[in-house]
Amino acid sequence: MSTLVVGSVALDTVETPFGRADNVLGGTAMYFSLAASLFTDVNLVGVVGEDFPAEALQTLQERRIDLAGLQHRSGETFRWVGQYDFDMNVAHTLDTQLNVFETFHPTIPDHYRDSRFVFLGNIHPALQLEVLAQVTKPEFVALDTMNFWISGAKDELTQVVRRVDAVIINEGEIREYTGEYNVLEAARHILGLGPRYVVLKRGEYGAILFEGDRIFAAPAFPTWEVRDTTGAGDSFAGGFMGYLDSCQSLDHASFRSAVVYGSCLASFTVEDFSIRGLMKASRQSLRDRYLHLADITHIEAPSPIQERDLVSEGV
Amino acid sequence: MSTLVVGSVALDTVETPFGRADNVLGGTAMYFSLAASLFTDVNLVGVVGEDFPAEALQTLQERRIDLAGLQHRSGETFRWVGQYDFDMNVAHTLDTQLNVFETFHPTIPDHYRDSRFVFLGNIHPALQLEVLAQVTKPEFVALDTMNFWISGAKDELTQVVRRVDAVIINEGEIREYTGEYNVLEAARHILGLGPRYVVLKRGEYGAILFEGDRIFAAPAFPTWEVRDTTGAGDSFAGGFMGYLDSCQSLDHASFRSAVVYGSCLASFTVEDFSIRGLMKASRQSLRDRYLHLADITHIEAPSPIQERDLVSEGV
Repeated sequence: MSTLVVGSVALDTVETPFGRADNVLGGTAMYFSLAASLFTDVNLVGVVGEDFPAEALQTLQERRIDLAGLQHRSGETFRWVGQYDFDMNVAHTLDTQLNVFETFHPTIPDHYRDSRFVFLGNIHPALQLEVLAQVTKPEFVALDTMNFWISGAKDELTQVVRRVDAVIINEGEIREYTGEYNVLEAARHILGLGPRYVVLKRGEYGAILFEGDRIFAAPAFPTWEVRDTTGAGDSFAGGFMGYLDSCQSLDHASFRSAVVYGSCLASFTVEDFSIRGLMKASRQSLRDRYLHLADITHIEAPSPIQERDLVSEGV
Repeated sequence: MSTLVVGSVALDTVETPFGRADNVLGGTAMYFSLAASLFTDVNLVGVVGEDFPAEALQTLQERRIDLAGLQHRSGETFRWVGQYDFDMNVAHTLDTQLNVFETFHPTIPDHYRDSRFVFLGNIHPALQLEVLAQVTKPEFVALDTMNFWISGAKDELTQVVRRVDAVIINEGEIREYTGEYNVLEAARHILGLGPRYVVLKRGEYGAILFEGDRIFAAPAFPTWEVRDTTGAGDSFAGGFMGYLDSCQSLDHASFRSAVVYGSCLASFTVEDFSIRGLMKASRQSLRDRYLHLADITHIEAPSPIQERDLVSEGV
């Protein structure tokens, strides 16, 4: 078992109502890898510049994340500057410096090619296709994307959508991509293109899994501290994919559990800036949060509704 | 068992991306009564003008809703004109004509005074206090409110909050009332004022019940047709209160079921304009939706997370 992730490795500067962090570790591949590494072996593909701190590489290596696919280029690492108001479902981008990420092309090392799981992080759909061209029949491929590619590279994005098993996407994006406001309609639209699964991320409102006609809805893990939501979606995806990769059988119940683990990992991430919250997640604390989510969503079987003698009742 | 509701009875004009309805039945007491009447006897207190259609009274009577407390005044019924965009979590009020509602004071008929359950709909907190002064030790009292009273009559509202068992409130309102953005903090704030329960309504994202340290989170019932969300919150409250009133014992499990029934009733309401969707709810169809919600939220017990040999893991 092993999970390949291709995506950004970044130095983020983030301000929220609860504080500020400058030039801290971030990026899809960073959050995804750390989350997935609690469940499976992770093969990372990305790029960093000369300014990328050596300690960060060590942090990843201590989680046995394979960095053979992490390219080192002269120049600066991708930098993102963002700001959040109290509604931390929405990030406001203040500045983006692509730097070494601008000319990034994914090169998949030979020993990554037979990864069982592949996560195509939020990069240009053409690069996502380049990844697919280099891997050998993965059992499960998922993609993430963003409004920038939906509006700017929709045809290429659709080519990728047609080739993946799962689309992991947020509410605004699925509505923009499908032109459907109702999330059931929007999910059906994507399932009609080929993927077997749609995972709809709804920030503090949780996530919904669509598999054919089956639905699973999970709330976000309720947490007292929400300091910075950067990386929550990528941590979710890492937990989701990493857990699935650790399962022998990919049945519907496994997918439900994967969504729950994804939600739990996202909840760790939002509790602090950068990867600090996520680094506190352990197998034991994840299990505790999983059980808590199971408890707070448990619905008893209905007791019979007492009969009342009504003249009119619905159909 | 019987549930008293005090609130508006209205003629609404509503436009959404899916259609328009002119001068149709609406108002808190209307939606609440119809929803609650599937579970219990309802005692309605409100006011209508001379223009209120006789057929509507008959509709209520066919559900055995007691209308002894419905005042008939000369003049026009309360009218609300509203509009929704695709995001139907937010109503835009275009016009409000209070008419006979402007001088409304609730008068509780003698045979209503020992109602077991009391729902104080979204009216001026001073009127909610007038209701409480006229009832005889109800077992359970809940209130709803709105931003208008939170900003304009907060002290009086807090007097009511201190005297009720449950506050049923939406996300924007609880944040405005408590000054807390985090919903756990906001709920704790209200629980600290006296109520044993807070029910947080989140529109299409469902509802959360808070009881002491216990939480129950339910998604909205996923529905393909969302045509008009007017009355969804009042239908939720009617299902919630009506179901509880039909229960012999008010334990935590009953409250969870009540939230689920509330969600199911709200889902009928949003499927059509005015009370048309809600009128289609029957005991059987409610039970079906209840079981569907239980199914789509079911979380399996976690399988053990496979051990990996990591150098670092969280605390």
